[in-house]
Amino acid sequence: MYEQSEAFAALAARYGSRFSRSQALREQHGGGETYHAIAAPDAVFFAETTGEVADVVKLCAGDGIPIIAFGAGTSLEGHLAASRGGLSLDLTHMNKVLRISPEDLDCTVEAGVTREALNVYLRDQGLFFPVDPGANATLGGMAATRASGTNAVRYGTMRDNVLSLTVVLANGEVIRTSSRARKSAAGYDLTRLFVGSEGTLGIITEVTLRLHGIPEATAAATCRFPDLASAAQAAIAVIQYGVPIARVELMEKRLVDYTNAYSQLDLGSADTLLFEFHGSEKGVAEQVETVRGIVADEFSWATTPEERSRLWKARHNAFYAVLAARPGAKGWATDICVPISELAGSVALARDLVEKADATAAILGHVGDGNFHVMFAVDPDDPAELSRVRAVNAELIHHAIAVGGTSTGEHGIGSGKIEYMREEFGNAAIALMRALKSAIDPQGILNPDKILPPI
Amino acid sequence: MYEQSEAFAALAARYGSRFSRSQALREQHGGGETYHAIAAPDAVFFAETTGEVADVVKLCAGDGIPIIAFGAGTSLEGHLAASRGGLSLDLTHMNKVLRISPEDLDCTVEAGVTREALNVYLRDQGLFFPVDPGANATLGGMAATRASGTNAVRYGTMRDNVLSLTVVLANGEVIRTSSRARKSAAGYDLTRLFVGSEGTLGIITEVTLRLHGIPEATAAATCRFPDLASAAQAAIAVIQYGVPIARVELMEKRLVDYTNAYSQLDLGSADTLLFEFHGSEKGVAEQVETVRGIVADEFSWATTPEERSRLWKARHNAFYAVLAARPGAKGWATDICVPISELAGSVALARDLVEKADATAAILGHVGDGNFHVMFAVDPDDPAELSRVRAVNAELIHHAIAVGGTSTGEHGIGSGKIEYMREEFGNAAIALMRALKSAIDPQGILNPDKILPPI
Repeated sequence: MYEQSEAFAALAARYGSRFSRSQALREQHGGGETYHAIAAPDAVFFAETTGEVADVVKLCAGDGIPIIAFGAGTSLEGHLAASRGGLSLDLTHMNKVLRISPEDLDCTVEAGVTREALNVYLRDQGLFFPVDPGANATLGGMAATRASGTNAVRYGTMRDNVLSLTVVLANGEVIRTSSRARKSAAGYDLTRLFVGSEGTLGIITEVTLRLHGIPEATAAATCRFPDLASAAQAAIAVIQYGVPIARVELMEKRLVDYTNAYSQLDLGSADTLLFEFHGSEKGVAEQVETVRGIVADEFSWATTPEERSRLWKARHNAFYAVLAARPGAKGWATDICVPISELAGSVALARDLVEKADATAAILGHVGDGNFHVMFAVDPDDPAELSRVRAVNAELIHHAIAVGGTSTGEHGIGSGKIEYMREEFGNAAIALMRALKSAIDPQGILNPDKILPPI
Repeated sequence: MYEQSEAFAALAARYGSRFSRSQALREQHGGGETYHAIAAPDAVFFAETTGEVADVVKLCAGDGIPIIAFGAGTSLEGHLAASRGGLSLDLTHMNKVLRISPEDLDCTVEAGVTREALNVYLRDQGLFFPVDPGANATLGGMAATRASGTNAVRYGTMRDNVLSLTVVLANGEVIRTSSRARKSAAGYDLTRLFVGSEGTLGIITEVTLRLHGIPEATAAATCRFPDLASAAQAAIAVIQYGVPIARVELMEKRLVDYTNAYSQLDLGSADTLLFEFHGSEKGVAEQVETVRGIVADEFSWATTPEERSRLWKARHNAFYAVLAARPGAKGWATDICVPISELAGSVALARDLVEKADATAAILGHVGDGNFHVMFAVDPDDPAELSRVRAVNAELIHHAIAVGGTSTGEHGIGSGKIEYMREEFGNAAIALMRALKSAIDPQGILNPDKILPPI
């Protein structure tokens, strides 16, 4: 649709093969990892510097061409759909770690650095970055979707771990949202405005992150329960007791089975909690003792670093394990997050709904935060099945909102959850979000048709 | 200036004595706790419900009357100045704790509840709210200025501890910014947009807060150092070692002397660090041992709860202790926050500048965050002295920004630091902040002339 635009002609002339209209590339950039239909952009551009991003945005703004920022392409909620065509702005070539300050426990990376690449880079310094969505996402994409993961109960989400961003605005101007100070009361919180904005308010090109020291001691354990309810109750009890646990993850029995098959593990087939403890040697021992006092069930310890690493890698691959259970299927993950006192009821409701929906699915949760997923493997060509899964998702979201929770703990709204935004926020708050969007991106060229419901 | 407005006539008719034009009340509502000149509003209104706030905002919006939200009146940066007249909207009658959920570690309070009142309320439940600016501020005011205090190094600031807000917008509409979920990836982060907005984007009427369990064990200690530099270095070493310390505060020798006099303490006259440790019995013992290993200097322990409470009360009153050293003086507090690796140099620079300025002043710092204050007691009628203090403040801010820090760690911009905003953020980011302000408050009636520099 923008094939003949002056902007595309200028990009092709200036950047050669880094601007591409190949169909394979376009299709690869128009989808994510789930059931959402691919909507390919008209072209793809691989940026190498913030200056180039600014140049591209100015050119596209001149012709009113939509721009969709692209990182690892691991969106679960249709964030990458080029619903109005336009340009996919691929940031994966911007993959340099720009600066590490071990004494300040912070670093600055380009938006295309992945979380795993950063952690490899940091390991020799005794540091790590804790936010770990299942996918090996880019840090720019993680900032844009306010990602979290298994460590959030202890270390927070991207909201808490981003100190500052470099952002290219819709007019091509470049801003830095904040200083490197640990706290500041200066002006509006531009950092948090862009964290979670899903590419709709600006293009994140650099991310300054808080880092954490690798703990002196780490212990991990799996604990098997007779049923899902008792596993959920145990997690709640550990959180309410105030144990400073690093990770507590719920895997329902069928997910343990899928994961054993997919990741060649031999976890016992049961509803299971995975725990990880971080601290000093004595501190970890004390946490373990406290948790064993609370949770009387059967513990197995992952004592070597290799065992731990294998366990958590399998956990991160849980989504793919469910998909592997049904070849040819696409994923669909629910993502509600509720106050912890509502967790057990919410998990029970989810189990009940999944039974009735007659679908390939398993429950998995970052239960320390009150956040859990039903991961479905769906046939995208079966409208009846999609409709049943959609109904489960809707009912869980209605429930979450009714008990004081949210439709999405970490996956974002994208295009997949727009229909629930008014229910969660109310019309006046949605109007305010629209006013912010219009003020910052008056032409509406930045990732259109995401987050905000139609007027 | 708005005496004859229809809005004021309507307010007087509807609300009787809760709408007042008494000169004493107006003057009391037009200033804070520092050197800034009082600029009295034309009237004061004492709101009792969110609905009343919405009503008042609609009436004032109809006549274009400025509205300045008012809590405890403890602003340090001229936030309360009615520079264009208008209405001071006093929220102190909205002082109810609306809801506490011990199992979810959260609560909702009206904006006029003070931090001390909340903590008295929570104590029986084994819970506390950690954010503690020096003053006994209201939680609405603390949210509006993104306040922090001595516990921020462990528990975070208002940015981290506000889960959700009820806000009356400039058009009188009421929004709730978020759910009670611990994390969410749904939509723009409206909560963080209003936290720190200093009454310029909306009127905060209710605050939902994260709470924390009162730790099983607490220990506090003072540690004396031969000079300021070694005290600062010790604090840096403790932070860089990763001790999960609850509080680490720097008090320079002259401040210890002022505080001994003002609060009838007998701390040894020396540059001093105040430490507090929270955790399990064993955890606290281990932290103490670690810190004693790092800091070889002279420790004194505050072992009883009464001693600890007395020590921290004196610390919170440090600002008043400096003022008491010079009867009739007004306060002026600098507030830079720098990366921790820059702390020692910044404190040394501050000491040097204070020497040269020949002023009554003392240095105090939340050094775990890299944030510290020079607290001046100034003669507001001596232009030469004010000019010398202004120069110290400016030089510290230039320095902080140059080394990656911020002009204000916790006091906010108000009208006092507007002139440094462009230096800290750059013109494009300031233009973005202006665009946000115009989109949300198109008439500019909410606390005008704060935060944003002129175009």
